[in-house]
Amino acid sequence: VSELPPRQALKALVAYDGSNYWGFQMQRGQPTIQGAIEATLRRLTGEQIRIRYAGRTDRGVHAAGQVIAFESGWRHPVADLERGLNALLPQDIAVRQVEPVAEDGFHPRFSARSRLYRYTVWTAPWRWPLNARYTHHEPRDLDLALMNQAAGLLVGDHDFASFGRPTQGESTIRSVRRAVWQRQAEHLLTFDIEANAFLRHMVRTMVATLLEVGRGHRTPQEVLATLEARDRSLAAPLAPASGLCLISVTY
Amino acid sequence: VSELPPRQALKALVAYDGSNYWGFQMQRGQPTIQGAIEATLRRLTGEQIRIRYAGRTDRGVHAAGQVIAFESGWRHPVADLERGLNALLPQDIAVRQVEPVAEDGFHPRFSARSRLYRYTVWTAPWRWPLNARYTHHEPRDLDLALMNQAAGLLVGDHDFASFGRPTQGESTIRSVRRAVWQRQAEHLLTFDIEANAFLRHMVRTMVATLLEVGRGHRTPQEVLATLEARDRSLAAPLAPASGLCLISVTY
Repeated sequence: VSELPPRQALKALVAYDGSNYWGFQMQRGQPTIQGAIEATLRRLTGEQIRIRYAGRTDRGVHAAGQVIAFESGWRHPVADLERGLNALLPQDIAVRQVEPVAEDGFHPRFSARSRLYRYTVWTAPWRWPLNARYTHHEPRDLDLALMNQAAGLLVGDHDFASFGRPTQGESTIRSVRRAVWQRQAEHLLTFDIEANAFLRHMVRTMVATLLEVGRGHRTPQEVLATLEARDRSLAAPLAPASGLCLISVTY
Repeated sequence: VSELPPRQALKALVAYDGSNYWGFQMQRGQPTIQGAIEATLRRLTGEQIRIRYAGRTDRGVHAAGQVIAFESGWRHPVADLERGLNALLPQDIAVRQVEPVAEDGFHPRFSARSRLYRYTVWTAPWRWPLNARYTHHEPRDLDLALMNQAAGLLVGDHDFASFGRPTQGESTIRSVRRAVWQRQAEHLLTFDIEANAFLRHMVRTMVATLLEVGRGHRTPQEVLATLEARDRSLAAPLAPASGLCLISVTY
């Protein structure tokens, strides 16, 4: 009777510059974060490992604290697995806090209580090559107070059907805990939004809609009407992926 | 008698992500910042323009405020030249403040009174893909107080032959006005150094030498002895280009 080696459940934080990837989720024939991590795990462990993850970030979106989990028969210290992964992964992907999963049945997506995303906007009249990979360039002054007034109307338990679609046939109700614009420097704005979960494209659609408010092309009252209409065609088109980063996931 | 169109002297600030370039200065067959700017000027103006510049940054080094000057027969508003340049330049290079030169005989290099460089070090044990292009990763705690003590010994008028070579047969005496390490965030250190001018590789050699101090492998007193020896073999090898950025030039 052959015995499979004992497999342990592991989890890790993943940070990546998403500029050169077609999003997190595996796509045949395209570079993806999942594809890069699974290929590296295979090289290190010899195992065909399928990873689970907290958020399916889109093409070009970045992450500081994506969460993954997987099972492996790795029998050396997990610190060696972490070192090995970082040595072999492409330079624009890194893992940290590789550790055994304590909880039974932990799933990075289904066990998550909330996600925090940050969207960064560069508002100077000139392009800025030193942050262009991580910002969206909106070359004009924006009315921060008005944008925050509109953002505040999106906080709470709402049906966000106007701002995104569910990945499967689920509900479009989400619970947004916080949605705040802040000025980080003279020409640098950030939008932090935390929710129990997000619809597909929800953050970038909200950002694009709030940028219209900042430009004076839409009022906060119109944002509220857009939310209440539950009609995807009323919100603005997607803001660019480069400005978006998955900051952290809370369990 | 054919008349050349009147040419005006212009200057501009240039910012670039140097990761994909073989430095500022033109090199046949290699991508350079100078090559990209001159090719774009040719497309816009039809003229074969040779630009002058403040600092010959090395391969992989970045700039926030490089200064260039050139002559052109451009007869439209200079704001249009700036817009055109930014539209046609690669996304990792941008110009701003394109304007007529007021002073007679202005040369971005020879008229400069001082240059400010910043070197950025990421000290977390883990790689960080979201700043890797703009930092050097030194995965350990560094003794900031000791590094600043050593940096202070380099301030003043000194013969810096231990830290770099002149580009031509000139003197190796330079006047360093300021050299300060600062903690910007938990794992992020910056070194700002301002001098009337720099020898080739001087900042990166100083940084590498001061990092040895931060690791406890060289004392401030040994740095002073290195300075006084005027012997290039005594300083540490070059720190990586990715951490270095030409911040500004003062006239």
